[in-house]
Amino acid sequence: MTTRRIVAVGGSDAGISAALRARELDPDTHVTVVVADAYPNFSICGIPYYVSGEVTHWTNLAHRTAADLAATGMEVRTDTRATRINPADHTLEVLDPAGNPGLLPYDALIVGTGALSFRPPITGLHGPDALGPADGVHLLHSMGDTFAVMESLTNRNPKTAAIVGAGYIGLEMAEALTTRGIAVTQIEALPEVLPTVDPELGALIHAELERNGVEVLTDTTVTAIARTQTGAISLTTTHHGKTTVRVVDVVLVVVGVTPDTALAADAGAELSVKGSIAVDEAMRTTLPDVFAAGDCVHTHHRLLGITWLPLGTTAHKQGRVAGENALGGKARFAGSLGTQVVKVFDLVAARTGLREHEARPVNPGWQPVTTSSAPDDHKAYYPGATPLHIRITGDAASGRLLGAQLVGHRRAEVSKRVDTYAAALFHSMTVEGLNELDLSYTPPLGSPWDATQIAAQAWTREHQLDAQRRDLHAANGRRDASSAPL
Amino acid sequence: MTTRRIVAVGGSDAGISAALRARELDPDTHVTVVVADAYPNFSICGIPYYVSGEVTHWTNLAHRTAADLAATGMEVRTDTRATRINPADHTLEVLDPAGNPGLLPYDALIVGTGALSFRPPITGLHGPDALGPADGVHLLHSMGDTFAVMESLTNRNPKTAAIVGAGYIGLEMAEALTTRGIAVTQIEALPEVLPTVDPELGALIHAELERNGVEVLTDTTVTAIARTQTGAISLTTTHHGKTTVRVVDVVLVVVGVTPDTALAADAGAELSVKGSIAVDEAMRTTLPDVFAAGDCVHTHHRLLGITWLPLGTTAHKQGRVAGENALGGKARFAGSLGTQVVKVFDLVAARTGLREHEARPVNPGWQPVTTSSAPDDHKAYYPGATPLHIRITGDAASGRLLGAQLVGHRRAEVSKRVDTYAAALFHSMTVEGLNELDLSYTPPLGSPWDATQIAAQAWTREHQLDAQRRDLHAANGRRDASSAPL
Repeated sequence: MTTRRIVAVGGSDAGISAALRARELDPDTHVTVVVADAYPNFSICGIPYYVSGEVTHWTNLAHRTAADLAATGMEVRTDTRATRINPADHTLEVLDPAGNPGLLPYDALIVGTGALSFRPPITGLHGPDALGPADGVHLLHSMGDTFAVMESLTNRNPKTAAIVGAGYIGLEMAEALTTRGIAVTQIEALPEVLPTVDPELGALIHAELERNGVEVLTDTTVTAIARTQTGAISLTTTHHGKTTVRVVDVVLVVVGVTPDTALAADAGAELSVKGSIAVDEAMRTTLPDVFAAGDCVHTHHRLLGITWLPLGTTAHKQGRVAGENALGGKARFAGSLGTQVVKVFDLVAARTGLREHEARPVNPGWQPVTTSSAPDDHKAYYPGATPLHIRITGDAASGRLLGAQLVGHRRAEVSKRVDTYAAALFHSMTVEGLNELDLSYTPPLGSPWDATQIAAQAWTREHQLDAQRRDLHAANGRRDASSAPL
Repeated sequence: MTTRRIVAVGGSDAGISAALRARELDPDTHVTVVVADAYPNFSICGIPYYVSGEVTHWTNLAHRTAADLAATGMEVRTDTRATRINPADHTLEVLDPAGNPGLLPYDALIVGTGALSFRPPITGLHGPDALGPADGVHLLHSMGDTFAVMESLTNRNPKTAAIVGAGYIGLEMAEALTTRGIAVTQIEALPEVLPTVDPELGALIHAELERNGVEVLTDTTVTAIARTQTGAISLTTTHHGKTTVRVVDVVLVVVGVTPDTALAADAGAELSVKGSIAVDEAMRTTLPDVFAAGDCVHTHHRLLGITWLPLGTTAHKQGRVAGENALGGKARFAGSLGTQVVKVFDLVAARTGLREHEARPVNPGWQPVTTSSAPDDHKAYYPGATPLHIRITGDAASGRLLGAQLVGHRRAEVSKRVDTYAAALFHSMTVEGLNELDLSYTPPLGSPWDATQIAAQAWTREHQLDAQRRDLHAANGRRDASSAPL
């Protein structure tokens, strides 16, 4: 066996996870990671906390330092752009930091090019005169974007900001800028913030934003952004057909991402949902010995099948699988459940699995129904108990758990309670089956039936109790009949 | 079908859960709960928080009020002692509050008599002259015991207390009395406090007790308790053969419980481990139409088989099963994993499944090995990250997860992280398989690989990486050989 050469493109979660796993499994393998910028293995999810000031220095956002990475024996080439994959030759063309071309031969290549900020169809954001960081208008996805935002915050000393989008990053940035003393207006085109959860729960986050001084505009579309004479930024918005213009000092546009697939696509890799790279569960693309992982690939979802659902947790898992298989291993990505969590001021919102409208098209045999409940996070007699707002979605036909959404106080262990549902979904449990899990209890932190189980019982009571009663009645009827005197 | 008459003996977790489930499944069933004292459906686990003053009134400890229980349609007979089961007649003999005998006919009986405080072999605790509540010496298990303790605290205004035992209740009471300003000495016969976890983790709790001013004596046995001339209490202790006498104002003896099985045993029910009542997974005793649940029965454990492991969570589950089956249902208790958690000042300790020495005798094919790690509860760059001390036990032969123990800060979501392991154990996952769970992540609350998974990876690295490397090497060797030129 000769020394294998593995090349990973991308220094974020997927690429680094692949490189780490490959080095761990075979310390003789030569692993090179090609990183377009100077920031390998940075926590993109941590950007809002650097902007808020809670992370005091940007270098703290590194999951691992350059020295940590070097100590694993991998070679990291920063400021190096991968420009072309030559699948037949098994080579990767790159431009080094000075712009000089180079060629990296590989036995296995792992593409972890990630995602790019989506640039919505707003006048002023496109074309040669598009507003940008120099105007205080920012998209936000990379460390480079982050430094530009910080420069705007320093140089412009903004009093007001508009955040276009109220998804995870939008909400976290609303908190971050509020923490810095900036008056934030959050603008969401959909009827409620955090549209990845049901609007009943999104409304709780909406209220939390307002409680913290954020102006929240829902059902509101930004149609144009322009520079004013004073150097401020005007936003033209429409709400129920009515147009309004408002002026702010800085604008953040955070309305999602699209997969960055040019490198793989140009080499002929098959593309899939929303233009993401098609991979099998071993994270192989359709190109020989080319793997891909992370935000740039489509996602095997345990309930939805193939979809596109970029998440850092998924990128880590997929990268680990790709790294192992790049060595000739037999790892398989077990699939995502779309488990997500976000902290917004003092609330935490989380979800896993499917919501009703997501589940309905998946399987015509399913009857997805949802029950809301609000059990306390711990025994009410112990100080500090708060309600957990839980929505359980299950299949009324089979009783199978399909998904769960939770909103609760940041001290109510929401993020690890959603994990119980995620573990249950992983094993295709029924909602009723959740009652069998031996979960922990102490009065300051839980209940004899955990809140996750109380919510399951509420679902069962609403959707299955009648059937349970009928079954019992029928069973007893048969028994009574069979024991009747002859 | 005539109206069924169900009688439950015991007003704690098992009896009330059974009664609730029976009423829920068949609102026509007549359900009577016979309760020896005046406190049905009280949270015994909450007693320390009433003693500490955090629960302001004892009535708050009720899971449900008398009115709540009445509203379910069950009949609760308080201050009523069940004295004899007549299995052949299907009747229960009782003494009413006035001491008058009565007879309750039943179609199905559920015994939920619970447990009694264990009275250790200490001179002064036995016989006609045994010290008791009037002397400031207390066992603690029931609401009656609690009122006696509160009376001592009020009347004696103690400055010092000794707590004999450093298990869950002993530790919670140490915190409770410290909160009241009492100087506590905690005495444990075993080498470390909280002996239900490995001593490495018990030592962290030990340090937390001392940090909060509790004097901790381990490897120390109390041999005698006596009243002093001033009305205080002297304790004679031995530690490594050396005898010491110390004087305190009050003494709590909390060294565990024994199953309360006299009622069922007298009726001829088969007994089992540690004298607990034998039941099948439907919670049937060996007596016809007599079920039993909770602390008085042996425990079906998913890894250990039959054992005795009294826990409130288990009692709730077993009671629910018994209530359903008392109606003719087909419910089965899925088994315990011994999941437990305790808060001690600012730390939380939890466990689920088996420790090494517990696993070893279960299956001669297992090679139980344990790995320690201390991942942060959330990304270190976000303020407030604290280490979670995790010990994973798995079978080195099969890779199967056997158990997990955790100690961490009370804000580190320890109690719901142990639940992830509990769910994994329920489904017989491997340690490596934990990496496949799609757990939630946001920097203020977690990591892309959750701490539970980082601990699993540490175990795998220590116990399986060499084998993984060999497998990979062998697979590649075969591939190289098969692709060699002919």
